[in-house]
Amino acid sequence: QEKIDSTQATISHSSKGFVFATGDKKFELQIAARLQFRFATPDDQNPVTFNDFTNLNSRLFKINRSRLKIGGHAYHPWLKYYFEYELGQGNLLDFRVMIEKWPWLKFKFGQWKVEFTRERFISSGEQQMVDRSLINREFTLDRQQGITAYGNLAGRGAANFSYWLAMLTGTGRAATFNDDNKLMYFGRLQWNFLGRVIPFSGGDVGISEKPAALIALAAVTNTSPYTRFSQSGGGQLVGYEPGSNGQYKIDQYQLETAFNYKGFSWVSELHRKYILNKGTNENTTLAGYYVQAGYFPHGIISGIPEKLEIAMRLSEYRPDLSIKANKQQEVAFAVNYFFQGHKNKLTAEITEFTFEDKDLLRQDETRIRVQWDISF
Amino acid sequence: QEKIDSTQATISHSSKGFVFATGDKKFELQIAARLQFRFATPDDQNPVTFNDFTNLNSRLFKINRSRLKIGGHAYHPWLKYYFEYELGQGNLLDFRVMIEKWPWLKFKFGQWKVEFTRERFISSGEQQMVDRSLINREFTLDRQQGITAYGNLAGRGAANFSYWLAMLTGTGRAATFNDDNKLMYFGRLQWNFLGRVIPFSGGDVGISEKPAALIALAAVTNTSPYTRFSQSGGGQLVGYEPGSNGQYKIDQYQLETAFNYKGFSWVSELHRKYILNKGTNENTTLAGYYVQAGYFPHGIISGIPEKLEIAMRLSEYRPDLSIKANKQQEVAFAVNYFFQGHKNKLTAEITEFTFEDKDLLRQDETRIRVQWDISF
Amino acid sequence: QEKIDSTQATISHSSKGFVFATGDKKFELQIAARLQFRFATPDDQNPVTFNDFTNLNSRLFKINRSRLKIGGHAYHPWLKYYFEYELGQGNLLDFRVMIEKWPWLKFKFGQWKVEFTRERFISSGEQQMVDRSLINREFTLDRQQGITAYGNLAGRGAANFSYWLAMLTGTGRAATFNDDNKLMYFGRLQWNFLGRVIPFSGGDVGISEKPAALIALAAVTNTSPYTRFSQSGGGQLVGYEPGSNGQYKIDQYQLETAFNYKGFSWVSELHRKYILNKGTNENTTLAGYYVQAGYFPHGIISGIPEKLEIAMRLSEYRPDLSIKANKQQEVAFAVNYFFQGHKNKLTAEITEFTFEDKDLLRQDETRIRVQWDISF
Repeated sequence: QEKIDSTQATISHSSKGFVFATGDKKFELQIAARLQFRFATPDDQNPVTFNDFTNLNSRLFKINRSRLKIGGHAYHPWLKYYFEYELGQGNLLDFRVMIEKWPWLKFKFGQWKVEFTRERFISSGEQQMVDRSLINREFTLDRQQGITAYGNLAGRGAANFSYWLAMLTGTGRAATFNDDNKLMYFGRLQWNFLGRVIPFSGGDVGISEKPAALIALAAVTNTSPYTRFSQSGGGQLVGYEPGSNGQYKIDQYQLETAFNYKGFSWVSELHRKYILNKGTNENTTLAGYYVQAGYFPHGIISGIPEKLEIAMRLSEYRPDLSIKANKQQEVAFAVNYFFQGHKNKLTAEITEFTFEDKDLLRQDETRIRVQWDISF
Repeated sequence: QEKIDSTQATISHSSKGFVFATGDKKFELQIAARLQFRFATPDDQNPVTFNDFTNLNSRLFKINRSRLKIGGHAYHPWLKYYFEYELGQGNLLDFRVMIEKWPWLKFKFGQWKVEFTRERFISSGEQQMVDRSLINREFTLDRQQGITAYGNLAGRGAANFSYWLAMLTGTGRAATFNDDNKLMYFGRLQWNFLGRVIPFSGGDVGISEKPAALIALAAVTNTSPYTRFSQSGGGQLVGYEPGSNGQYKIDQYQLETAFNYKGFSWVSELHRKYILNKGTNENTTLAGYYVQAGYFPHGIISGIPEKLEIAMRLSEYRPDLSIKANKQQEVAFAVNYFFQGHKNKLTAEITEFTFEDKDLLRQDETRIRVQWDISF
Repeated sequence: QEKIDSTQATISHSSKGFVFATGDKKFELQIAARLQFRFATPDDQNPVTFNDFTNLNSRLFKINRSRLKIGGHAYHPWLKYYFEYELGQGNLLDFRVMIEKWPWLKFKFGQWKVEFTRERFISSGEQQMVDRSLINREFTLDRQQGITAYGNLAGRGAANFSYWLAMLTGTGRAATFNDDNKLMYFGRLQWNFLGRVIPFSGGDVGISEKPAALIALAAVTNTSPYTRFSQSGGGQLVGYEPGSNGQYKIDQYQLETAFNYKGFSWVSELHRKYILNKGTNENTTLAGYYVQAGYFPHGIISGIPEKLEIAMRLSEYRPDLSIKANKQQEVAFAVNYFFQGHKNKLTAEITEFTFEDKDLLRQDETRIRVQWDISF
């Protein structure tokens, strides 16, 4: 079976790692890895329940993420593929094929992070803070399997829209089955009203010469045994029991804004999530938001190093809108030093958590984390 | 430990993916990946029991296979190695070293798919239908660990034989132990009576100018806790309880034919499997067969695209030869479109299953599947 | 996000596998794999309890290790990284970043084999016998996560010292948490008193022209739920119950020697391990040692092939120093044939185990193993 079908190829290195490509441009393969080292005290995870405030503290040093990334194209420059593997956990995260022949109509097949929220879709290696906000756990769709159509419709000036429309199995990462006949449907419309698209990357690391902004609206509906999704696949929010097939019908909406200009960056998300438990016929409405802003102060104080950014975030989560007293908050402040942009950066962060509950005492926790994220 | 032992190397691309090779031909490494996307309704798996006909249907979209393949040679062109990893499941499938110095006497060490049946040994990326037949589950030896001697004895004309002789641990994929002192022994003799060897690949995609044919006889004996093997390792057929060490003695025979000529392809397998349950001293004889044929109709109707193949399969399984009424059947029809041979192809398939049992009503199911298989 | 940041790169092959490097020397990536095939009778594992002597024997053939190794540097030649993956088990073994700018002060972040003992730190692909000694199970720290500072202080002649100082989470491989506030602390001081450093590699395969020797002292303290560590992470020695957080306080000391000259090699380790069970307030002292020597007899008998080495090992383990009668011993003899040094070698080994216990009959077992270890 030795076939004589060899084509000459070349090797180079770019921000995507080492790149192998054939001379005829038909085939290309990139390989890169990323490690994220983290020190945290008194512990690393965001508190989820009131118990998490009184638990034994356990400072730790860990390799929080270790990723292998393989991407490229085959047969045609527009027939792309991408694999991402979490080495430490042994989880295959992304495996997908993209048909990107026309900018206004592209297709994606496989498993990937649904483009529902900007915060989740941005790679954990391109974040502005050490990690995502308090509300990511409750509102993310995380990774799903299926098919999506997407593209950018760019007219003159403000007539610049991006869109995503997806049909997904709706049972989370690594699912090899569907629980019922119902699929997950997802859509997102993004208005790039200054005529430029902001990349999915935290902060304005490139120090944009011209302003870029977006307003996006996203919605999703799904019926499954789960009330939340994470890298581990489908799971349950606090207070929800493991579901049977098709037990939870969930509708979610999200309003997002983002803005980048001369080193300043802004991003916000405002969420609503409606859970119908078909077992008990109970309806619950969850709400949450975050706002986040960052700046490279070198822009106004030239004595501060160019590669240093300061950023802060405020987020709030309401587990049940009908109970006003139940509320969780996070205020965080971070400093980034970008040795080589997001590819090699150090982040220090301090966060104050506050939990309020109608039946319990208010709880607070202050957490400090230091993180080094490096890509090869 | 920095050693100055560097040799210049080159890079190219072939049907095996990107290829790195030293100038002196001593070292070579190929890397490739493959994704298989599948849509199925009402469900994907072959029915195994009567319950599978009445279960809740669950149409689905999934990445059915995601493979990373690394092969090459080291120190000598004839000292070869091959790894194949199922990324989605996190299973190492193949890891083996081959000594292929002489065509008539080669050796293989490690773990791989035993060459017992043509259907199982052909890569899931080079199949003619969407997947293997109804009888594969019951008769395959799947992957085993051990050592095999094999080769091709080619005299003039009809005097062309291929053979395989193996000594295997006989406890399936990923086994790190043997249950007893007994090993699995396997042999296969294949007569290539037209003097040409048919490659292990589905259909006559290369449109053979000259006819090629084979008749093969294969046999295996094993004693283990298992009555069947799959990618998950050892397991049990329907109706067999989990076994203790050395509980099941199994002997299997298989008669196989295959023929390729001008776009037409034929393949058949006829199986017998004798299970002795040493716990109960019961003997059972299982039987099954399939016949499969395909054709590129462009050969007679030039208006039909060259890259389109039609194929069909008939298979039957008898779980106990002593009970005539117990019988399972599959009739399948498929259309393949080969964008780039087996490396990038689309398959649509319709299958009719029929199950008969002496005590139960006859059951039918019609399944439709569409599959895209692409290698990078 | 297509960035035009490509740098030309080249490819070569070395003892570290295929090597990709940019022309400016800033980036380099090496990729290699290793397979270890083993036949063992009557079984493979070292006996751990008296039961292991009377168990059903089960000879076996297996792929004992299958490793993927990816290393290199990024941004600077001194900013190095290394990943090692056990493919068969799906375990990420090593993932670490090294800052090696100065020979006398280097830093390592991530997860790796603690440099506590020479025997464990030497790669399983560079061993002198088929595998490590009887006492490795009880005394190794295996892999841990954390940070270490290390280096070589080389004055003239005998003033040559290597050192390692580490702060580790102390909960073993793949741990993503710390059980308590206490970390593991480790130190090792190594005196290279002949002014040359012996590499961490078994035997004197390079046939040293000049003698090299070392004396090393190492110590470690840890508080965790575990009494031993292995590739599976934290676990328990025979006779110790699963622990709660911080239950076992463990202190260990080790005295090591090694010597290489003209094909002769010597290595020894002498261990003490103090276990305080905070649940029961019991103290136990464990002790053990091994001595191992090898020689390439071609040095004195030129008729013997140059690539052949003979080696032997004696080791003894005392599970509780206060009970003199409890003692386990191993005497092993091995022959190595180095086709291409440690990168491709065949080893045959015979071992005699003896277990003594104050309440039980003395037990013996003779084991034979043959192993082929090959790197690509």
